[in-house]
Amino acid sequence: MDCQTDDTGSLTPMELYEKLSAQGDKVRTLKTEKAPKPDIDAAVQLLVKLKLEYKTATGQDYKAGCPPSDGPTLQDNGPSVTEGEDLVNPWNVTTTSAKGVDYDKLIVRFGSSKIDQELVDRIERVSGQKPHRFLRRGIFFSHRDMHQVLDAYESKKSFYLYTGRGPSSEAMHVGHLIPFIFTKWLQDVFDVPLVIQLTDDEKYLWKDLSVEECHRYAVENAKDIIACGFDINKTFIFSDLDYMGSSPGFYRNVVKIQKHVTFNQVKGIFGFTDSDCIGKISFPAIQAAPSFSTSFPQIFNGRKDVQCLIPCAIDQDPYFRMTRDVAPRIGYPKPALLHSTFFPALQGAQSKMSASDPNSSIFLTDTPKQIKNKINKHAFSGGKDTIEEHRKYGGDPDVDVSFMYLTFFLEDDEQLDKIRQDYTSGVLLTGELKKRLIDTLQPMISAHQQRRKLVTDEMVQQFMTSRPLDFNY
Amino acid sequence: MDCQTDDTGSLTPMELYEKLSAQGDKVRTLKTEKAPKPDIDAAVQLLVKLKLEYKTATGQDYKAGCPPSDGPTLQDNGPSVTEGEDLVNPWNVTTTSAKGVDYDKLIVRFGSSKIDQELVDRIERVSGQKPHRFLRRGIFFSHRDMHQVLDAYESKKSFYLYTGRGPSSEAMHVGHLIPFIFTKWLQDVFDVPLVIQLTDDEKYLWKDLSVEECHRYAVENAKDIIACGFDINKTFIFSDLDYMGSSPGFYRNVVKIQKHVTFNQVKGIFGFTDSDCIGKISFPAIQAAPSFSTSFPQIFNGRKDVQCLIPCAIDQDPYFRMTRDVAPRIGYPKPALLHSTFFPALQGAQSKMSASDPNSSIFLTDTPKQIKNKINKHAFSGGKDTIEEHRKYGGDPDVDVSFMYLTFFLEDDEQLDKIRQDYTSGVLLTGELKKRLIDTLQPMISAHQQRRKLVTDEMVQQFMTSRPLDFNY
Repeated sequence: MDCQTDDTGSLTPMELYEKLSAQGDKVRTLKTEKAPKPDIDAAVQLLVKLKLEYKTATGQDYKAGCPPSDGPTLQDNGPSVTEGEDLVNPWNVTTTSAKGVDYDKLIVRFGSSKIDQELVDRIERVSGQKPHRFLRRGIFFSHRDMHQVLDAYESKKSFYLYTGRGPSSEAMHVGHLIPFIFTKWLQDVFDVPLVIQLTDDEKYLWKDLSVEECHRYAVENAKDIIACGFDINKTFIFSDLDYMGSSPGFYRNVVKIQKHVTFNQVKGIFGFTDSDCIGKISFPAIQAAPSFSTSFPQIFNGRKDVQCLIPCAIDQDPYFRMTRDVAPRIGYPKPALLHSTFFPALQGAQSKMSASDPNSSIFLTDTPKQIKNKINKHAFSGGKDTIEEHRKYGGDPDVDVSFMYLTFFLEDDEQLDKIRQDYTSGVLLTGELKKRLIDTLQPMISAHQQRRKLVTDEMVQQFMTSRPLDFNY
Repeated sequence: MDCQTDDTGSLTPMELYEKLSAQGDKVRTLKTEKAPKPDIDAAVQLLVKLKLEYKTATGQDYKAGCPPSDGPTLQDNGPSVTEGEDLVNPWNVTTTSAKGVDYDKLIVRFGSSKIDQELVDRIERVSGQKPHRFLRRGIFFSHRDMHQVLDAYESKKSFYLYTGRGPSSEAMHVGHLIPFIFTKWLQDVFDVPLVIQLTDDEKYLWKDLSVEECHRYAVENAKDIIACGFDINKTFIFSDLDYMGSSPGFYRNVVKIQKHVTFNQVKGIFGFTDSDCIGKISFPAIQAAPSFSTSFPQIFNGRKDVQCLIPCAIDQDPYFRMTRDVAPRIGYPKPALLHSTFFPALQGAQSKMSASDPNSSIFLTDTPKQIKNKINKHAFSGGKDTIEEHRKYGGDPDVDVSFMYLTFFLEDDEQLDKIRQDYTSGVLLTGELKKRLIDTLQPMISAHQQRRKLVTDEMVQQFMTSRPLDFNY
């Protein structure tokens, strides 16, 4: 239930503190009384959410018995991570489990809601389309306010989609496509406007790159994004460096957001320190601004009540928690979100994919031969050491990167299920599993490359020109 | 000599610390040895400058024996002010002296240079014009790199002028005109482009005003600025809220500056705290950006080497110290500056003028009667309590606000000098002095109001449209 966040949005730090204290007592009581597990879980989830809000509001961790102080807070190097917890923020994703991040725990920690079967069924009912494999398989696993978006959609109130990418290099890998593949499906199914932000300014601020390089990467990345098949009449792709200087609405919203977020708050949410440049410190407002329809007057004709739905990887959620906190204070609707899991590196779910390590993922520029070699050489296997052992004990698909990649890209549910069964039982060998992935990725990447070749400079320019889209507002 | 700043610009905090320690020793030695006063003064001036740079670089105050730490710095509520020193920053000007701020001390503390007779003479020689009364009378009293601007001008290298205003209300008073009156003179005399920034975004961030109100104030203030007589073909007036969203160059420069300034630095320079909103924290970059010609590609055709000269009140200097620190690191020339003293409130040089207190100054909308009444009722007098005493001991023009205002607005040097003499000797009574000021201001304000009436909406729009000016770059 997300409305709890809304209820506490206007509380003072002291009120939040008191609510937290009471909730802590409640959790202890429930545990002492050995209450049913779902009751305890719900109480803990609310406690965690309150702690998060407390930290956002005060920049301090909640400590029982220590009311919030108005004075200076101690240096804080980012949201605290308890031992054994995964670290997930826009710049770092770290886990110690070969299966990857524990997403159920993340839902509790971030205070979002699980995309359960009921929601997937509802999306099918409302859209009249079979749910995308990313929904069927829990790759988009968490949401905020998706029911609200569907309620509105059912009563003929439109929404719009917003997603983005930080163009840190020319090279994009298959993992980068996940939000775009899913967003294209959403656009097709719901027939709504889509804005795609390329945060070239962010990359300039964070990386040792020139403004010109970052802007060039934005344009190059736009070609790969366009190759995903977006409708040119319904999609606006923009570089921050360009759009900030060409939109009357965008900067006004950036300033409005910047007025309503303190350094204490971004310190708590993003872990900024006093040594960070002021560009980083104020950047979150720039990623937040496209969540509001008035940032695109050319599309929404000045309407400020068109709700935004943001499909993104869960590591981007901190930006939008902040955005949702600010929205009601500046008179805008809160954006809704759909969160995806992370795409694992070839070396396994604990490793980090890196644009500078060509062997850490399959790149959109890889040849069929490179794809084959990379998967055969580098894809972490859940199989046994020898064929005999594998036949006897079977492999572990939950840590096997080839199998993980197939869950992302193999459309046929039955085939995927059969592969899982056969691999688990030992009928399917690691080499054979890898071959299935190679056979899936080679044509997919080739087709992407073909489509990218057809993307002309004129098309890029049109996608990236501030203009009305094919919708009447 | 300003070049010392340049020399230390690239030093590490530790190198700065060592340089500071050495300079401290030198000052002590000179004092002990009873060296000539100019030598001691020069050494002290360098010491103060180094301390300022140290604070800018580290966010910490220099303390002898305590090398700079890398760790978190303590909360800092702004540049420290020693007891008895005047407080001068963009939001506060405080002094305990009836004569006003001690400007000679301020030059030493800020590390700028005095506008001495030699520089005034040189401006006369280079421009071929009688120096403006603000120069003749030390109202523009301090500078950075003005000789460099004149050197370049003499070898036919042009520069441009940049000044601005924070539009916090519709009402402007005569004090607000000082930088504009002087800038108009500079534009006439040197025939160079002029850009005028209206920081409506700043006012939105600092005041309890809406974006729309701040923008409206910007447009209203533009009319008073235009009424000062600027050449429409050579002047670009812009609202930040508008121009950020319509210039390809401005935001790029803002981001470049924001990448090269840390929170520690703005904390040290402006006294920001962790509770300040991220908009305030990043704003200094927006006031800095117009100092670089690439922020106006439409005027300078992309040239990045056109030097900027900024006439402004000395309280704005912190912004431009920061700007000058950043400039070489992003490949731009440092802006030069001409600093003015503050315009005193009617109640005296220790009081603060306030747009919300109509009796604290003469407003540009005041009627002749209001002007007369305000001066007679509220202008702080340096005269004696009775006519007899006044005749006997004379008045003190240095604390008399009517006399101060005359130094700003009475063009004739001989008349002004005679008024000073007669008032000091007691020949001129307070009422007579006030009458001189009333007779000076009434026609001046009336003429301003006449010119403002002639400013049409079309003219405002043209001044505020991003466009080339009558210069070839």
